[in-house]
Amino acid sequence: MGEFELIRNYFAAAPCAQAGDGVALGIGDDCALLAVPPGDQLAISTDTLVAGVHFPDVCDPFLLGQRALAVSASDLAAMGATPLAFTLALTLPSVDADWLQAFARGLNQMALGCALRLIGGDTTRGPLSLTLTVFGCVPAGQALTRSGAQPGDLLCVGGALGDGAGALPLVLNQRTAEASITQALLARYWSPQPQLILGQALRGKATSALDISDGLLADCGHIAVASNVRLSILREALPLSAALTEFFGLESAREAALSGGDDYVLAFTLPAVHLAELRAAGLSVHVVGRVEAGQGVAVFDADGQDVTPQTRGYQHFRESQ
Amino acid sequence: MGEFELIRNYFAAAPCAQAGDGVALGIGDDCALLAVPPGDQLAISTDTLVAGVHFPDVCDPFLLGQRALAVSASDLAAMGATPLAFTLALTLPSVDADWLQAFARGLNQMALGCALRLIGGDTTRGPLSLTLTVFGCVPAGQALTRSGAQPGDLLCVGGALGDGAGALPLVLNQRTAEASITQALLARYWSPQPQLILGQALRGKATSALDISDGLLADCGHIAVASNVRLSILREALPLSAALTEFFGLESAREAALSGGDDYVLAFTLPAVHLAELRAAGLSVHVVGRVEAGQGVAVFDADGQDVTPQTRGYQHFRESQ
Repeated sequence: MGEFELIRNYFAAAPCAQAGDGVALGIGDDCALLAVPPGDQLAISTDTLVAGVHFPDVCDPFLLGQRALAVSASDLAAMGATPLAFTLALTLPSVDADWLQAFARGLNQMALGCALRLIGGDTTRGPLSLTLTVFGCVPAGQALTRSGAQPGDLLCVGGALGDGAGALPLVLNQRTAEASITQALLARYWSPQPQLILGQALRGKATSALDISDGLLADCGHIAVASNVRLSILREALPLSAALTEFFGLESAREAALSGGDDYVLAFTLPAVHLAELRAAGLSVHVVGRVEAGQGVAVFDADGQDVTPQTRGYQHFRESQ
Repeated sequence: MGEFELIRNYFAAAPCAQAGDGVALGIGDDCALLAVPPGDQLAISTDTLVAGVHFPDVCDPFLLGQRALAVSASDLAAMGATPLAFTLALTLPSVDADWLQAFARGLNQMALGCALRLIGGDTTRGPLSLTLTVFGCVPAGQALTRSGAQPGDLLCVGGALGDGAGALPLVLNQRTAEASITQALLARYWSPQPQLILGQALRGKATSALDISDGLLADCGHIAVASNVRLSILREALPLSAALTEFFGLESAREAALSGGDDYVLAFTLPAVHLAELRAAGLSVHVVGRVEAGQGVAVFDADGQDVTPQTRGYQHFRESQ
């Protein structure tokens, strides 16, 4: 028990753990207390990452800390929420000071980058896993949900797709690549950048939004169901990174963009009238299709041929091994 | 992936998962949305329970569901918060429909009893563990913390102590007892009743509070440090259940009351002026000692002899095996 109590010091000492700015009471009591600004609602998301399932049993703890928080913060971006705070439930087989220090550094670096402050959690003994719960504020009625897409809207994404899935062979040491490719793809896998600024800019503009964690096709399917619309994707419009295309070739890169997971960029539907304004603000907005009446998701090529893949969706890390 | 998606249906179908009363958006989007009443703060607590560490690898999933939520809700009681909602992160080695149904029934029953609604979570594959995060509301400035105890206050508890630890030999099948004793102690272990009404009644009256999870001595130590006071406990005043005394004998029952964990009753400090009012309201308040100037925690017998145990604090479930 004692050594697990001590672990809290690694996190409690972080600058991000202090009270202030919406955090009325931080780590150390039975509960933390958040002061939500008047007129705002609180957005909440919980994600668990299990060793051997969501990340390799042996990996750099600094990178793991970064990635774990980024994945959760991406859900705040998808709602258009302003980041506020998070809790960490950390289960560890044993106490390893070097591991904990590196993990806490990675976590704290991402926390500072996202303006998220650690307000509490739990530390227990058991097989390695992490559960993070993130909190953000959004003006009442302005949260971006999945259910408002309208026929005629544009279907957009916030950045290059497929890099998360494209990095997996490198993460798993199944393939090697040139240093520049390795560096670019591994950075996308281990340090995804939650699109918090973009999400907040979409308030009152986007009619639906989510972050791509299961792959563009599967996640667009969620919008299609929730909004009762059909989403039509233009294959040639998919934004692809140079690293992914060079590593995989164009065809496989497009497959990764459509069906790979772990991208953590936003997908959203947008009335065309807002496009110029968002781009003028310097935001990354790629139009990849449009919303139509109907159901489901389809992919077309530039000739108008239906090229929707037969299989879709995300492979768990474990399933890809 | 598919079958783990389906698991959500066990929980999403629960009556407690619908929107309304502070829950602006429930299960199914990137985030849930809570509407915190104006003037209130949001109390948040996270607890992880790991199979083989916090509960037996093989146990009744209905009871596990009940206990898991009760343990977390007890932290809301300790802050004087009004329950609002919770998230569940469930990690399972495989999908077992019978297990899930029973677990969901136990969880939902406790959720209804506590007026907590499931608003989201995550379901992943891995070694069995649960992380629950609970949310409650409390008027700004009225949360019960650990840091306000004043010399002269009474030290009180909300009910009988030691039953949680007393139940462990039964939970672990290390001992047997008469049916009436077994029933009483196992009920305290598997279905602790979070003292939510008491906690809310203590707002503006108690100067400090927490729920007893690590044992009275260890938890009073937390108040002593946070409030910079000394807590003096009268051994003969410890409330003990008939089942515990009969099972353990008086001396061991007192040891369990002082040093056992898992009681989940409130311990709090109270200016004497409020005692009659709380009791008149029908609340369970047992005076077990007083707050003095100084540091630390001490136990005295009726003759004024210092009988503070040498060892104190909680045994993990695993450590007791």
